[in-house]
Amino acid sequence: MGPAASPLSDSLPPPRAFDATPFRVQLAALTDWIVSYYHQLPHLPVLSRSRPGDIFNALPATAPELPEPFDALLADLDDIILPGLTHWQSPNFFAYFPANASGPSMLADLLTAALGVQGMLWQTSPACTELETRMLDWLAEACALPAVFRADGAGGGVLQDSASSAALCALVAARERATGGASNEQGYTGGLVAYTSSQAHSSLDKAAMLAGIGRANLRKIDVDENFVLLPDALAAAMAADRAAGRRPFFVCATLGTTSSLASDPLEAIGTLCRSAGVWLHVDAAMAGSAALLPEERGRFAGLELADSYCFNPHKWLLTNFDCSCFYVACRRDLIAALSVTPEYLNNDASTTGAVFDYRDWQVPLGRRFRALKLWFVLRGFGLVGLRALLRHHLMLAARFAEWVEADPNFQLMAPVTLNLVCFRYRASDDFNRRLQAAVNADGGLFISHTALAGQHVLRLCVGQAATTDVHVEQAWSILRQTAVRLNQA
Amino acid sequence: MGPAASPLSDSLPPPRAFDATPFRVQLAALTDWIVSYYHQLPHLPVLSRSRPGDIFNALPATAPELPEPFDALLADLDDIILPGLTHWQSPNFFAYFPANASGPSMLADLLTAALGVQGMLWQTSPACTELETRMLDWLAEACALPAVFRADGAGGGVLQDSASSAALCALVAARERATGGASNEQGYTGGLVAYTSSQAHSSLDKAAMLAGIGRANLRKIDVDENFVLLPDALAAAMAADRAAGRRPFFVCATLGTTSSLASDPLEAIGTLCRSAGVWLHVDAAMAGSAALLPEERGRFAGLELADSYCFNPHKWLLTNFDCSCFYVACRRDLIAALSVTPEYLNNDASTTGAVFDYRDWQVPLGRRFRALKLWFVLRGFGLVGLRALLRHHLMLAARFAEWVEADPNFQLMAPVTLNLVCFRYRASDDFNRRLQAAVNADGGLFISHTALAGQHVLRLCVGQAATTDVHVEQAWSILRQTAVRLNQA
Repeated sequence: MGPAASPLSDSLPPPRAFDATPFRVQLAALTDWIVSYYHQLPHLPVLSRSRPGDIFNALPATAPELPEPFDALLADLDDIILPGLTHWQSPNFFAYFPANASGPSMLADLLTAALGVQGMLWQTSPACTELETRMLDWLAEACALPAVFRADGAGGGVLQDSASSAALCALVAARERATGGASNEQGYTGGLVAYTSSQAHSSLDKAAMLAGIGRANLRKIDVDENFVLLPDALAAAMAADRAAGRRPFFVCATLGTTSSLASDPLEAIGTLCRSAGVWLHVDAAMAGSAALLPEERGRFAGLELADSYCFNPHKWLLTNFDCSCFYVACRRDLIAALSVTPEYLNNDASTTGAVFDYRDWQVPLGRRFRALKLWFVLRGFGLVGLRALLRHHLMLAARFAEWVEADPNFQLMAPVTLNLVCFRYRASDDFNRRLQAAVNADGGLFISHTALAGQHVLRLCVGQAATTDVHVEQAWSILRQTAVRLNQA
Repeated sequence: MGPAASPLSDSLPPPRAFDATPFRVQLAALTDWIVSYYHQLPHLPVLSRSRPGDIFNALPATAPELPEPFDALLADLDDIILPGLTHWQSPNFFAYFPANASGPSMLADLLTAALGVQGMLWQTSPACTELETRMLDWLAEACALPAVFRADGAGGGVLQDSASSAALCALVAARERATGGASNEQGYTGGLVAYTSSQAHSSLDKAAMLAGIGRANLRKIDVDENFVLLPDALAAAMAADRAAGRRPFFVCATLGTTSSLASDPLEAIGTLCRSAGVWLHVDAAMAGSAALLPEERGRFAGLELADSYCFNPHKWLLTNFDCSCFYVACRRDLIAALSVTPEYLNNDASTTGAVFDYRDWQVPLGRRFRALKLWFVLRGFGLVGLRALLRHHLMLAARFAEWVEADPNFQLMAPVTLNLVCFRYRASDDFNRRLQAAVNADGGLFISHTALAGQHVLRLCVGQAATTDVHVEQAWSILRQTAVRLNQA
């Protein structure tokens, strides 16, 4: 049994959940803390130096019986939590893909929490649904996405927590379209085959597992020397499956793969999918934000052939996680696959079909008022500001790539299509692993790695909101000096 | 194509994503707005009076090119968004189940946004993982949950966005345990059967659809006159399926159903599941918080027989959505079902098995630092404060139920097991529908409904954080007066 109730202390009156006076005082203290954190950020070791258990063991074993002062929380934040953070908002964070935060987005997240409304149905807060629809339309327009994804036609957009969840929803909608809704009702019994490239994100595997399709039925199609899916190989795989009595039903093309930001040829893939009646999902989780730039829109040609599309403003568009934009060309297909309406959720607005109920566009029932973030960010920076930031990152990544190319000890390992540089020291995989471990341990930057063509490849992605030329220059300097040091050791 | 880039405006330098000076000014203005909102809340019509399209049409068709002043955002918040909100934090909100917000939780959400770290792997922010593990242990202790759910054994807890997602994870883990991992690899091919009561939440249907099990293979077991699952009926259904060559693999028992807060008999169900090797998931999304009260723990007896358990502090524990606690008795089963490791996520800490990587405990890859909310709430109110609030709500619900029982025109429609009162006016379903619509349109309160034993039943749930005797008395007064008025019309 847990701690016994104390009759004395439990006779206290109920607490006020929201009390303006302490809220103001505590928020002021927290604001100072946040400002101080951002001031320190460039100087903190990016990758946490914690060892497993350090933070867990520094925390008390049980929750406090009595309320504690806010100052004690802030002190523990400094002493226990801070050393256990890997600082994703550091300008020296170059690992994985970025997860942008920004002032306007933070404010919106506070507002979302304060309003505390649920957007599962239109009725449960009409503004939560309608602002979201409008923001998704704004982004579709700003990114010059095909008109089919706008809410004024048969399609529309919705915010998901992640591209992983969006991929799952797309896969299930495709499964139901292919089986006429029978899998949802009677259960899936096999026979369908999905396709993506060998470079696709792991979330496609996970979606295939969750939806019962099975990883073995998600074919990983070969790529060319630039890590781009080969449409002929896709066509051949689909034909082979058809010949064997299996049914192709889903293709995921990637615009901007996780390993190297390679983009698959949408027009060729889309034409193939259309002629075969196969659902085409396009995963542009990272690269999708680049569609804000007219000069980067070439890779999006053919997107009008897609049944669904996803990109993540929470990566590279100053909008805090989670904020993943998921568009479908035919919302009826998505809703048919995900809708369940028990009596306690019935209401007139939904029954008449005059509104969107976004719970039918996603896995969970509940949903936060996430669209506020996009509203604050788009109005706070303007499209001009967002484009300027993206172009700044592209310029910095191009500069870093030039340095790599010009240095005889380093080599580029993939075309630099956007803001990611894949490179390695001209030495063994083991040396590159040690180089990566050493620079990350140093604390001055954090980079991650991938495998390309069987080699250990270092990844440096310029996408953190505060990164400038100073940080990229410092990263390059640390990398070169560390390589020298390792060679001397 | 979208708006063309303006060479002039696009030559601006990149914006500062976080700029301390405007951040402080804007946060101060937003703080005033929030304090003012909470001041107005008791007086605002709870259910939004917006008509479909009102908000969407009041918003510009495209995103602004240039940054806009924060004051313009706040003005639109008042003019456009506010009328479109259904006020979940109003003390007069009695609909559905509550979605508690609180000062400490709001502050933590701001901090989560400001830190902007990702907790997908232990390495990507050790504190994000370890504080979460500790918070889940704190709650397990405070709720006197079985020791199997603590992280120091074979099990452990994780935060999910919702009980829906938790149910999906549990169902898929059960599917993989039942098929030895074959569904994940080769695809699910049918034959499994799941069970829950006719009163279970719709998320179970959705999970059965998503996982490919099929709704027809989720048996809805009959309940008794108190809406409690009949174990004998469950045993009979399982036996019938086995006799027909199908394989029972999953049972979801509910502690606190959505319609009436009925609780299924865990010991009988759990014994049945254990002897049959069937996964038992226990959904206590709303009622789980009541386990903080020693006097309410009777319904949790037998929970040690469960393979997984879920409850939502974002409902009735002052922690903002989303915050759903999901516990498993054997984390290996869950991880085996959900883990996919591409090269770009490989790292030493994970490979050695010394840490939890929570991406393998959930659907999405990315994850926010959500545990901060629980930390702030548990320390900000103390267990004493939380227990006092729960008991206050229980007392108010009991009082309302007494009024209903004492009034010859009204009747209770289900036992009042916690803070939900199911009742109706002694008249037709149509009258009760009109009564509900009239009180909700009036704005003084918001209640929802359900169907119980084929009748339209009104639901009044006392769980909003600021609700006091004044609001419950007012709700009862409005209901009675409106019934009189409708009878006179």
